[in-house]
Amino acid sequence: MVSSGLEAGVPGTKKTVLIAGVDGYLGWSLAKHLMERGHDVAGIDAYMRRDWVQEVGSQSATPIARMTARLEAIFERFGRSLSFTRGDLTDYSVVEEAVRHSRPDVIVHLAEMPSAPYSMIDVAHATWTQTNNIVGTLNVLHAMRDHAPDAHLLKLGTMGEYGTPDVAIPEGFFEVEYRGRVATLPFPRQAGSWYHQSKVHDSHNVTMACKQWGLRATDVMQGVVFGLGGPDADPRLLTRFDFDQCFGTAINRFCAQAVIEEPITPYGSGSQHRAFIPLADALQCMTLAIDTPPAAGDYRVFNQFQGVHRIGDLAETVARLGSEIGLNTSVTPINNPRIEAEEHFYEPDCVGLKNLGYSPTENIEPLITDLLEGLVPYRRRIEARQKALEPDIWWDGRREPPGAFDQPS
Amino acid sequence: MVSSGLEAGVPGTKKTVLIAGVDGYLGWSLAKHLMERGHDVAGIDAYMRRDWVQEVGSQSATPIARMTARLEAIFERFGRSLSFTRGDLTDYSVVEEAVRHSRPDVIVHLAEMPSAPYSMIDVAHATWTQTNNIVGTLNVLHAMRDHAPDAHLLKLGTMGEYGTPDVAIPEGFFEVEYRGRVATLPFPRQAGSWYHQSKVHDSHNVTMACKQWGLRATDVMQGVVFGLGGPDADPRLLTRFDFDQCFGTAINRFCAQAVIEEPITPYGSGSQHRAFIPLADALQCMTLAIDTPPAAGDYRVFNQFQGVHRIGDLAETVARLGSEIGLNTSVTPINNPRIEAEEHFYEPDCVGLKNLGYSPTENIEPLITDLLEGLVPYRRRIEARQKALEPDIWWDGRREPPGAFDQPS
Repeated sequence: MVSSGLEAGVPGTKKTVLIAGVDGYLGWSLAKHLMERGHDVAGIDAYMRRDWVQEVGSQSATPIARMTARLEAIFERFGRSLSFTRGDLTDYSVVEEAVRHSRPDVIVHLAEMPSAPYSMIDVAHATWTQTNNIVGTLNVLHAMRDHAPDAHLLKLGTMGEYGTPDVAIPEGFFEVEYRGRVATLPFPRQAGSWYHQSKVHDSHNVTMACKQWGLRATDVMQGVVFGLGGPDADPRLLTRFDFDQCFGTAINRFCAQAVIEEPITPYGSGSQHRAFIPLADALQCMTLAIDTPPAAGDYRVFNQFQGVHRIGDLAETVARLGSEIGLNTSVTPINNPRIEAEEHFYEPDCVGLKNLGYSPTENIEPLITDLLEGLVPYRRRIEARQKALEPDIWWDGRREPPGAFDQPS
Repeated sequence: MVSSGLEAGVPGTKKTVLIAGVDGYLGWSLAKHLMERGHDVAGIDAYMRRDWVQEVGSQSATPIARMTARLEAIFERFGRSLSFTRGDLTDYSVVEEAVRHSRPDVIVHLAEMPSAPYSMIDVAHATWTQTNNIVGTLNVLHAMRDHAPDAHLLKLGTMGEYGTPDVAIPEGFFEVEYRGRVATLPFPRQAGSWYHQSKVHDSHNVTMACKQWGLRATDVMQGVVFGLGGPDADPRLLTRFDFDQCFGTAINRFCAQAVIEEPITPYGSGSQHRAFIPLADALQCMTLAIDTPPAAGDYRVFNQFQGVHRIGDLAETVARLGSEIGLNTSVTPINNPRIEAEEHFYEPDCVGLKNLGYSPTENIEPLITDLLEGLVPYRRRIEARQKALEPDIWWDGRREPPGAFDQPS
């Protein structure tokens, strides 16, 4: 059902998928998922995520194996190899060689620095984030033009590209009337961090490459992902799980706090509304997009999320579910180190993926309970890096603990 | 009239203006213009424009002096110095030091790689263009936040950021109704080269810095500039004039072709419509913007152009005016190496600057005649680099002469 072929619409057609960022949270999960489904997977990674997380004083809650061990385990499980290249997408010769060598039907580009706080640390992190992400994507686009013009680029963007406009959020484009003329225009992007801006820049670049060079791309505006990639019977196959202030996402961090029985700390009033997606749903969506590529020249945008949730409510939900499994939980809002609207309109569409067959998880609470239970065995690893859970990166450049939320009187 | 003060609206208030890119076509002209008006000018440049033009096999039609000679001539003419720093904006320590040292009221940021064809040469030029332009601007924004939060950033964008949408083009923002709600949104950008995209990325970054950090900025969507910066009684004070396929703009290139009595070569049908502005008008506009800064936190967009002209008509006009001064001129359209719409709607606003007092040149023909006559003394310098006038950079990656325009049958 979720599988329709690349060529001639044959269901279940085996594809060669090149995953850039295959060592990451999503990348590794997706590689296993696609191998399981019979696709050939090639991967590229420079292990930067491991470095960044170490730089911010943390580690993955799940112990992750070295790539050599991961690849051995892949071969043992699936009876075939994942063809891996260690390399950096900002080096064009690496990208060119990987594309020429793997001859991909699909290139899944997950190889970007994905953290808003990391990009806001200082000017060096801001410029590095934008440079790294933009150059990697431009290199992929050029390699596709010259060596894989028919391949499908599945590029990970973020719902954060849109910001929180005061109107509904369509999928990439909207039809508007302006001064008596009607046109379909790109929906304006209003991102709130240098990282999110880097993905806005990517979206503009990918759009141009499709329009001018006839490439085909799916730009995924993904909600905030959460969930454990495992358990896996083979520990070498576990995917990473980050909980630090930079690389941990909201629900994942709240669960890590609950598991070590520290207060759960939403930012500010907690009234921010954001789109979220369980990791398993994200894999389902990306598989649907892979199985149903856009036409040549088509720049397709999917908003990829399960639902919209209020951050403060999620904190309370994690606390309640944690307490139900015997954890001593509490919620203590802290001042918001980000500069963002806390009270805002938010009404994003999610239509395209549902039309392809995406069936969103109806109730995320059982998944949160699974996540909490799944994290308990890693409690000590989280405690060992507990300091990294506490935010101190402010959007205005300060580095200091935010302190308990000063309720507006 | 064009001068209203920075502080308390006092007309003619002297300001300190830091011009990034002071060695360039616009930068050097603006420096002289502001010194003439009594402002203090500091400048920064890494002489990259000289390198790029050499790289593409060309030279300025006007012989330009070394910076040391330029600075001596400035001192002799105005009786005071232009404070110059040789340095690259992508080096944060250079930007930080220049801002701290000059304590500017206004930072005019002209220090970007400004050529669409140059950015389309290959992947290395594409990634370098975007990196150079984006990092320079991010560095300026951070230096302002930390060392000059009240300064006014006057940033050179381009009308090319908008592309050619099928609706009127407002100045940066538009109010639209979408699914029953009304909001003011950024007007979507649809640029057509990696260079133009780099300015789109800048615009997004500057918007965010104003919103989050309370900086004030004017983002100038400038039309295609043309004109000679001189004549100047002191040859050391001449500004550059480029005519090569990368750094020469349309009217300037047509005039250079007319002066050496080679065919004028518009691209394709010539039906492309673009906004143009004479150099003198650009100086008038930038001065108005400098004299009337936006409020703290305000991101202001001006569309800066004299009028909209059809490229094919401009070629014919240059030929006719050239012939009137005795040049043997002709027009030979060549195939369009760019990927762009040739027939399109185009209706951009120019309101904000006119409200500040901008009085556009009514008829550009006398300016074109001046330009042609002004170029005649440099005929030999153009002939010496005639090869650089002929385009061979295609938007699809090819390098070959376009050949005579194949009229669609």
